[in-house]
Amino acid sequence: MAVGLSAPGALLPVPGIKLATAAAGIRYQDRDDLVLIALTESTSTAAVFTQNAFCAAPVITAKKHLHETSPRFLLINSGNANAGTGRAGLEIAQLSCRAVAKEASVTPAAVLPFSTGVIGEQLLIEKINRNIPALFSSLNKSNWLSAAQAIMTTDTVAKGISRQVEIDGKKVTITGIAKGSGMICPDMATMLAFVATDAAVEKKLLQTCLQEIVGKSFNSITVDGDTSTNDACVLMASGMSEIQIKDDAALEIFKQVLAEVFIFLAQAIIRDAEGATKFITIQVESALNKNEAREVAYTVAHSPLVKTALFASDPNWGRVLAAVGRAPVDQLDIAKVDFNLGDICVIRGGEPAPDYTEEKGQEILQEDEVLLRISLGRGPESATIWTSDLSHEYVSINADYRS
Amino acid sequence: MAVGLSAPGALLPVPGIKLATAAAGIRYQDRDDLVLIALTESTSTAAVFTQNAFCAAPVITAKKHLHETSPRFLLINSGNANAGTGRAGLEIAQLSCRAVAKEASVTPAAVLPFSTGVIGEQLLIEKINRNIPALFSSLNKSNWLSAAQAIMTTDTVAKGISRQVEIDGKKVTITGIAKGSGMICPDMATMLAFVATDAAVEKKLLQTCLQEIVGKSFNSITVDGDTSTNDACVLMASGMSEIQIKDDAALEIFKQVLAEVFIFLAQAIIRDAEGATKFITIQVESALNKNEAREVAYTVAHSPLVKTALFASDPNWGRVLAAVGRAPVDQLDIAKVDFNLGDICVIRGGEPAPDYTEEKGQEILQEDEVLLRISLGRGPESATIWTSDLSHEYVSINADYRS
Repeated sequence: MAVGLSAPGALLPVPGIKLATAAAGIRYQDRDDLVLIALTESTSTAAVFTQNAFCAAPVITAKKHLHETSPRFLLINSGNANAGTGRAGLEIAQLSCRAVAKEASVTPAAVLPFSTGVIGEQLLIEKINRNIPALFSSLNKSNWLSAAQAIMTTDTVAKGISRQVEIDGKKVTITGIAKGSGMICPDMATMLAFVATDAAVEKKLLQTCLQEIVGKSFNSITVDGDTSTNDACVLMASGMSEIQIKDDAALEIFKQVLAEVFIFLAQAIIRDAEGATKFITIQVESALNKNEAREVAYTVAHSPLVKTALFASDPNWGRVLAAVGRAPVDQLDIAKVDFNLGDICVIRGGEPAPDYTEEKGQEILQEDEVLLRISLGRGPESATIWTSDLSHEYVSINADYRS
Repeated sequence: MAVGLSAPGALLPVPGIKLATAAAGIRYQDRDDLVLIALTESTSTAAVFTQNAFCAAPVITAKKHLHETSPRFLLINSGNANAGTGRAGLEIAQLSCRAVAKEASVTPAAVLPFSTGVIGEQLLIEKINRNIPALFSSLNKSNWLSAAQAIMTTDTVAKGISRQVEIDGKKVTITGIAKGSGMICPDMATMLAFVATDAAVEKKLLQTCLQEIVGKSFNSITVDGDTSTNDACVLMASGMSEIQIKDDAALEIFKQVLAEVFIFLAQAIIRDAEGATKFITIQVESALNKNEAREVAYTVAHSPLVKTALFASDPNWGRVLAAVGRAPVDQLDIAKVDFNLGDICVIRGGEPAPDYTEEKGQEILQEDEVLLRISLGRGPESATIWTSDLSHEYVSINADYRS
């Protein structure tokens, strides 16, 4: 189903990070749905969370705990978002942290909880508690792939990637996993993503790296414009590689590889978007500023009429223009607007390009991966975002059962 | 197909206004697709148009002509929007005005052109020109219903309404027609709507009335968030009833009846929205200001996840909360948020209402017409908007053929 994406092969262990999974039966039968990630004591952790005002109980708890101390454990469940669950939900998030903390003899604030799944149903704490001992006994550095599988909800393939890079003659490993397929329009971060490295990076610098890279990866994708209540993205640096990232040259290499990992995971979410049959890149160029470029890109990406035309492989470019025209851009001069479908120019200077033909447009839209390039002719800034089309399958997934 | 809407029975003639229709074969076969409306010389005309930067050639032309002189004719075609057609399209709009003007011996600026249909294809001027004489010879005050039918595109039923009211002991008639089913998120006005009255209203006052009423009718509906390139709403006052509207008491009665007509037509567009199976009213209360109330209402109305849940009659209220939570409201305190599904309280003070059950929610969603009521607990302002659900039929209509 996913567009140009298959399940990851091997994911490389990251020294200092161990993982375990269990089948707690929270919503799904016959599959793992609970993950414990244990971080060695030297680990720095950075995180970004949803900006949704109705943020979930685990998000509230994780933010509070991160503020109090350095995390040693991440506890993640799928199948239930523990969102819209009021004070009772908050207590359950706290109880789950206490259960992990008790088993490991650490403070509950050293445990960060994460949940993903249906909103508005209470999570049963017993299902979590009774699996804690088994999780601890199966912690292993090689469990990244099973963790990627256990956090899936409407995802059709597990999402993960590993990269290794040499810095100052020493090998640094980065491995990351993510989940997400619907309710995707991240604001600060997307659904759940966990990325770890064995480089040593001081917490403040790690947070800066994370925020910078999230902007051009998870914060540049959308499936349906619906920002989740549970978005969270965590970056962990165990320091076990004995590479300390601080000076500029090493930091640039590190950030570049980190960005590759993040962009791969963000794109993986779009490739596996609910009902997606196409992977769409929207590039907006020569905007007055970055924000304007992003606004235009998102207006096009969220248009149901553009998305259904893409699903139909119909080069109905009038719908793209209509979306550009209603984007919140002050004094757009359409006589300066160009629009390209892949390599083909459709609109030049606001006028239909004389050499464009319906057949050329059709040919490009037959592909699984399509580039829409819009030039505003206003300034030097650009933005790229990724999105999916709107298919019958999208409606089925979201109407036929509760996700 | 339309939710709680059938075609209008009789539409009342408005003294001073005559209409004619013709089958020009612009896109559709075996139906009328061209309308001429002739206004008596004493008519005042007010109009509002799309704010889309890529506005259509007829919109540009109509705005220019309105500025120059008082309109005597409206020429409307369906099947082709004459949008995204560059300078050539602009010339065709002007040529069509010239053809009408020549037949009637008036200046071309006294003709306003309107088009609706597919974007990005050139309109053939010959198809229009050769029907002008026939249109003139069949001008008749009783042709409102055939005009309502001739302006339809993906509409499944014609939309029209008449009201009569006594003002100062004299009878005033208001008759209006509209079309629109997709690409509906009006910004100043919606698709095409033409409303006429025989009251005498000075142009400036008429424009003020129009703008005030459009705000709570056509500017309070959305199907897909896509503002059209061709939106236009025209209000004509022929003055033939000998009622001059100016003093406050008469103006209030007139505006109230006018608002009824506009709200009926705006709601008719939503009842006949592409693929609609439900008519949804979203009411946002106790907001800090009007704009905030509207932003929250539109965020919920545009959420594909909320719209698919409504299609499924699934009381998946977590999706509504998630939409409220991501709406652009500064410092929303969720502890003050209430959410009602019809008469049933689902969320009270940000917490699940203890007396709410899934069965109660289910029962309300079985209905064709559903009210979502959200209270923000922040201030005195409220807003009501109307929208439709997102069904398989919506995807079919917009993916299976070009509209």
